[in-house]
Amino acid sequence: MFDFIAFDADDTLWENESYYKKAEQKLTNLLAEYRVSEFLVDELLKTEMRNIATYGYGIKSFTLSMIETAIELTEGKIAAGQIQKIVGFGKEMVATDVVLLKGGWETIQTLSSSHTLMIITKGDLFDQERKVARSGLGDSFKYVEIVSEKTSEIYEKILAKYDIAPHCFLMIGNSLKSDVLPVVEIGGQAVYIPNSTTWVHEMVSEEESRKNSYHELEHLGQLPRLLDKLSER
Amino acid sequence: MFDFIAFDADDTLWENESYYKKAEQKLTNLLAEYRVSEFLVDELLKTEMRNIATYGYGIKSFTLSMIETAIELTEGKIAAGQIQKIVGFGKEMVATDVVLLKGGWETIQTLSSSHTLMIITKGDLFDQERKVARSGLGDSFKYVEIVSEKTSEIYEKILAKYDIAPHCFLMIGNSLKSDVLPVVEIGGQAVYIPNSTTWVHEMVSEEESRKNSYHELEHLGQLPRLLDKLSER
Repeated sequence: MFDFIAFDADDTLWENESYYKKAEQKLTNLLAEYRVSEFLVDELLKTEMRNIATYGYGIKSFTLSMIETAIELTEGKIAAGQIQKIVGFGKEMVATDVVLLKGGWETIQTLSSSHTLMIITKGDLFDQERKVARSGLGDSFKYVEIVSEKTSEIYEKILAKYDIAPHCFLMIGNSLKSDVLPVVEIGGQAVYIPNSTTWVHEMVSEEESRKNSYHELEHLGQLPRLLDKLSER
Repeated sequence: MFDFIAFDADDTLWENESYYKKAEQKLTNLLAEYRVSEFLVDELLKTEMRNIATYGYGIKSFTLSMIETAIELTEGKIAAGQIQKIVGFGKEMVATDVVLLKGGWETIQTLSSSHTLMIITKGDLFDQERKVARSGLGDSFKYVEIVSEKTSEIYEKILAKYDIAPHCFLMIGNSLKSDVLPVVEIGGQAVYIPNSTTWVHEMVSEEESRKNSYHELEHLGQLPRLLDKLSER
């Protein structure tokens, strides 16, 4: 039924956002003496949003935004040694093991024998290649597409590149904004698997999501059964 | 004769290394008061090499390495406001116009009507996509492959993905290490166009390069004539 099944990576195949939250907490602790913690999360998000056009997504971008926010909120009073620690928070994120989400390993093993699988993920090339490699799942995916944004135009380009008809394409992901709505828009099908920690930037209004139809699951382990159901129709 | 002609991007199609040199000079000036400039270039290179495994290539990686080097060389004495300036040096690099190298525009226009062209470039996804877009050349290339390293294995994978026989593949670039030797190794052909500023990290010994055979040109404008010659053989 589907020629290609594509998976988002961060917070769909493996944990991601929680590491950003942990780094944010470390930054809050580091800056405690400057009494800026109540503004920190908001200011950091603003800096990140402002910097997306300059840096794109990923850990390096996030590290630079943490540094910038810390200097601004402390009005330049932060010591260089503390900035070195912030650089370290970013490096710790890079060094973190890749933790697969519930049902991920089994589902990918099962589906890779019957379908052509690919990863379509947004973010930093280097981050994502590292995670694909460390996940142990790399060989199960025929193609890995790392893109800077996930719009319907980008999905159209990928489908054209591999000569995939939209109705034969299924996308799985935890972001309505990036994984589900743009795919439905171009005539593909999508499965939405919400994650407990979704970055504010990826959220869409309920109204916006109701206009479209897609499948929703609690975890990846439920995907093979959904595919069986869909193929019986 | 060649089904696919692939171009490296940085310092092959457009200027790149010179912007890194300019940022290095700004960093030297910024740190003048700390009397560390004689060690700066060496230490920065060491930091960059150490960080490649963590960050990969590109401007964000370079910015983080500049910050780290500055903090270390000043033994933590550098002020936060000066670190903010270093962040700014990186942002200026991102904002820089893309300047095509001699013969680049005409050659790409000429060859795109007779050959399938692609870009194979190493580095940061976001950096490279921005430069492809700003260069005005984007539409001339059927595929743009941004990779984290350029080894013979990576070239083999790309050729397999597009079903290209090695002897029908020509790679053009300014780095013997990344663009020429690995392509020759897998049976492809390569054109080496040296650039006046080549990053130390990309250099190979004369001995290593003599073992292989490839074509060498002074600038991109000479490429169409070389192709004519080769097809007459």
